[in-house]
Amino acid sequence: MDQFHERALTGRTSEAVRFAVDLLDSGAPQERIITDVLARSQREVGDQWQRDEISVADEHVATGVTETALYALSPSRPDEPNLGRVVVACAEGDWHSIASHMFSEQLRAAGVTVSFLGASTPSGEVARFIERYRPDALIVTCNLPIFFSGVVSLANVAHDVGVPLLVGGRAVANSPQRASRLGSNAVAKDLNDVLATLARWRESPDEVDLAPVSLDTRVAAFESQSMDIAQAAHARLSTLFSPISRYTPRQRDRTLEDLRYIVLFMAASEYVDETSIFTEFLAWLDNVLQSRGVPRAALVLGLEALIPELHSADPEGGRLAQLGVEFLSNLG
Amino acid sequence: MDQFHERALTGRTSEAVRFAVDLLDSGAPQERIITDVLARSQREVGDQWQRDEISVADEHVATGVTETALYALSPSRPDEPNLGRVVVACAEGDWHSIASHMFSEQLRAAGVTVSFLGASTPSGEVARFIERYRPDALIVTCNLPIFFSGVVSLANVAHDVGVPLLVGGRAVANSPQRASRLGSNAVAKDLNDVLATLARWRESPDEVDLAPVSLDTRVAAFESQSMDIAQAAHARLSTLFSPISRYTPRQRDRTLEDLRYIVLFMAASEYVDETSIFTEFLAWLDNVLQSRGVPRAALVLGLEALIPELHSADPEGGRLAQLGVEFLSNLG
Repeated sequence: MDQFHERALTGRTSEAVRFAVDLLDSGAPQERIITDVLARSQREVGDQWQRDEISVADEHVATGVTETALYALSPSRPDEPNLGRVVVACAEGDWHSIASHMFSEQLRAAGVTVSFLGASTPSGEVARFIERYRPDALIVTCNLPIFFSGVVSLANVAHDVGVPLLVGGRAVANSPQRASRLGSNAVAKDLNDVLATLARWRESPDEVDLAPVSLDTRVAAFESQSMDIAQAAHARLSTLFSPISRYTPRQRDRTLEDLRYIVLFMAASEYVDETSIFTEFLAWLDNVLQSRGVPRAALVLGLEALIPELHSADPEGGRLAQLGVEFLSNLG
Repeated sequence: MDQFHERALTGRTSEAVRFAVDLLDSGAPQERIITDVLARSQREVGDQWQRDEISVADEHVATGVTETALYALSPSRPDEPNLGRVVVACAEGDWHSIASHMFSEQLRAAGVTVSFLGASTPSGEVARFIERYRPDALIVTCNLPIFFSGVVSLANVAHDVGVPLLVGGRAVANSPQRASRLGSNAVAKDLNDVLATLARWRESPDEVDLAPVSLDTRVAAFESQSMDIAQAAHARLSTLFSPISRYTPRQRDRTLEDLRYIVLFMAASEYVDETSIFTEFLAWLDNVLQSRGVPRAALVLGLEALIPELHSADPEGGRLAQLGVEFLSNLG
């Protein structure tokens, strides 16, 4: 992995691609190269950004190289009998398509016919597409909890035309209960998992539950106000945290963005009744901010600036903010 | 082109890729295959979407296939001596990276070392990257006028560290004056154009004008209010155009989005003092709406619903709205 990663990060495209293709030629299965080399390198990119060791631009360079390697590992034709047809998509607003692209290439190599819709596709558009195309399953990757409502929306359009939903990605793969709450009929942990699920559905299509799913409309209303709430809290934070007056416009924008993500993660955590979604995000954000010289006290003040807004908009969010303050005070 | 396009649209990835690679093997230059086959197919995709013949999901499928073909046409190593180093990026918010990807692959094949940053990269991040990497040029593609302010922001970060800016893409390539107003030091029409410009800059670096560029701050303030203005106009439109009461939530969202784009195109047109940017967009939108059964009268009412908002926010926008109403009444 390290050899690939170092080349990806420094933009040495042809060297990185050759490394991946050499692994394939030496007999390593494509699925493993994608999972153990490309996906791990992408995770490492995320970790390095978190520690402020690399910039967003470096991240884009590495992702571009990884995409190229992914295409180079793509089979020119399936080497297995056709194992079904699937549509792979990301929820609306989710522009990070590389995980779904990795999944698509693994499925293609295994002999599944894949329609890869890539990043952010509105659910109405996915509906029209699968209604006409009638795949055996819709596969949606979800790496961030802030796209839960988008996943539910895709679950409903799929179920509406009798197509089951399979979800994968960091935010859902390790929690079948969570996935099921979002309307997914199965979780895709790895390629074999997906192939087994598709085979099972082919044999017993009637066992798939295609009932409509709904999320708490109160939480949905709260989520839709995230920007207004963040703006009000941002104005209040400026009076609570004086260094903000010396922030550059870019730093102010970042602070507003962070406040908005706090609200979005509150909503995600409320949708599925899992407080840990919110606290895990806080731990991550705390780490990101500290790596950039922002003290934990500023994050605590950010949460406190949100509390008065949450009183009216979402009392449960107010409780989460309180809990977040305690959680941060107990962090090492 | 047609043979590739038909395969791209129906998601026959390996057949489409084989078609492109066969062209390369038969001696067609990579640059021409990208320009005449892949880019033309993408334009046709846009035209078909405009005529409501295909959906956004179809568009995503075709783009995925085209990206795959683009990677397959990517040289494993430059076959020319190294002709310099460039960074290729899209302005923040611009997620449509395929044109910049096409440019990158053409440059790579010609022997230029390319750092491809891909879609939407904040200018602060591009600044950090080029400051460290010191390329011979920053190349930015811009296919829609709504990203003009993003291009200017990238021009300034490039100039700040002594790097010239070269722009390409539909919204700028045919108008050197417009490009220059946005801070670009040259326009990239095709590959040879870029290579000649890079060679010229290498020979006479002092001839490049690296002065900072600024856009009208009044227009920038107007642009930043686009969502508020669109929302207010949307509320007013509901009283002017009764069928809106029978719209689905999705149709309402689309209407709001259209109103917001109208405002963004007004701002783009004001930035560079070119009314035709606004009227060309209106003609396009009129065509899109009519293909979907929305009468021209509805678009006229949309413009009229914007006028009271524009009175206070941007009188010049109000003038454009009036002009738009006349323009639509004269359309065939």
